[in-house]
Amino acid sequence: MELFYAYKVGGGYAYLDSEESYHCVRVLRHSAGDSLSIIDGHGTLLHCTLKDASLSAAVATIVSEEPGWGGHPYYLRMAVCPTKNMDRYEWFVEKATELGVDEIVPVIGEHSERRKVREDRLQKIALSAAKQSLKGAVPVIAPAVSLANFVGSLPGMRSAPQKKCSAERSCQPAEELRLIAYCSNDVATRGSIVDALLTATDPTAAITILIGPEGDFSQNEVQAAMRAGFEPVHLGPSRLRTETAALTAVESVYLALACNQAYDSSSL
Amino acid sequence: MELFYAYKVGGGYAYLDSEESYHCVRVLRHSAGDSLSIIDGHGTLLHCTLKDASLSAAVATIVSEEPGWGGHPYYLRMAVCPTKNMDRYEWFVEKATELGVDEIVPVIGEHSERRKVREDRLQKIALSAAKQSLKGAVPVIAPAVSLANFVGSLPGMRSAPQKKCSAERSCQPAEELRLIAYCSNDVATRGSIVDALLTATDPTAAITILIGPEGDFSQNEVQAAMRAGFEPVHLGPSRLRTETAALTAVESVYLALACNQAYDSSSL
Repeated sequence: MELFYAYKVGGGYAYLDSEESYHCVRVLRHSAGDSLSIIDGHGTLLHCTLKDASLSAAVATIVSEEPGWGGHPYYLRMAVCPTKNMDRYEWFVEKATELGVDEIVPVIGEHSERRKVREDRLQKIALSAAKQSLKGAVPVIAPAVSLANFVGSLPGMRSAPQKKCSAERSCQPAEELRLIAYCSNDVATRGSIVDALLTATDPTAAITILIGPEGDFSQNEVQAAMRAGFEPVHLGPSRLRTETAALTAVESVYLALACNQAYDSSSL
Repeated sequence: MELFYAYKVGGGYAYLDSEESYHCVRVLRHSAGDSLSIIDGHGTLLHCTLKDASLSAAVATIVSEEPGWGGHPYYLRMAVCPTKNMDRYEWFVEKATELGVDEIVPVIGEHSERRKVREDRLQKIALSAAKQSLKGAVPVIAPAVSLANFVGSLPGMRSAPQKKCSAERSCQPAEELRLIAYCSNDVATRGSIVDALLTATDPTAAITILIGPEGDFSQNEVQAAMRAGFEPVHLGPSRLRTETAALTAVESVYLALACNQAYDSSSL
């Protein structure tokens, strides 16, 4: 299935940017009147007819819409420290998008070797993976932020983090499940991420998971996160690289909350 | 932790091949009398003292042994069709090794575009990932084989595939859990892989999982696998690339059978 992405939707039309227009009109040789499948990046598949086959600014008329297309029954924000080797982080962005993630926040920890990322490049990878895996929503790549600022920017938890929260992309949940995975020795105080998900969530839960850098979080950072309502969890007995740990967290959410759901075979 | 790999162990000695010897003696400048941590590739960590600091054939005296080091409580064989782009398959080998896998069989399906793989290169990646993730056992990369021959080579299932089987690496289980994931439309007949694992296995189960190529298995292949005792399962609602599907299967085994186990914090 061939999918395009509209950077803007309004008044019954979907607008392609120059890159998508070029691909649609020049590479794939579409012309006015052709049927196109276009995602809006916010979860909706648009069945369209190409109206203006411009090489740089194609416009399509929307015929019908499928909201929640290729969606998942939770809102997942992954706050993951960038890896030293960016290929590994880019791989994580691709795989997390295939499985289902809503927001990826590159957080910079005290022990992070890499302190800058190219969010625009990660956003392109997320868009490409969303199209490839037939998802209407493209995960948002947030600007890189220090762990202290990220934790400080979260709304306070008014009570236990298990309460229901709207899964809409625009929601800024004040109550959500917050988990932090790290490697230091106090495993006795931590349950597994699987237990935390199975005992705490409902199918529309908002979940934020923090994954540390190669050098792990500092004790100060772990404590700041715990004060902000993050529950410490472990990811099982294997020693995982940062990007494998982050993907294992995404997999645990996917397998616990989406895998057993009935689904439409057409999405396979 | 710095780990070496012994290609041969016997008579109280561990033998390094030329590549490991060069790395140990030339790159890391170890000399006779130094303490070394060496894996035998079959699950045992050897605490050793370097005896002969040869650049091409170093030999170490074994002081003590830790069997089952970095192991997992199941025997997992992944039979996965090679991807067109080998980088993606190599990535799968690395990540599966980090999480825990015992054997990877490149199976060639009727619809496989790639029909040859370099097993020696995959074996090196598995060794490197095992050392990096502190595992005593290195997964075996089996020679590539057609799906028909692979399925035909498996021992017959004498009864339901849920029976207990020894998890030792050398076991050739006659009864094991066999699962096949594919993409065609008869989802109604399939449960999720999570359900199949949680209802069927015990902590020492032997599990074989078949994952198809980009073009999926043919109906003939699916039926041949089912006659050999493979239970069809789905991997949830997301449309996954071959290597992501294969890793999701490994993750589901890891999360269902290992993640919740008590573990030694030193393995982190």
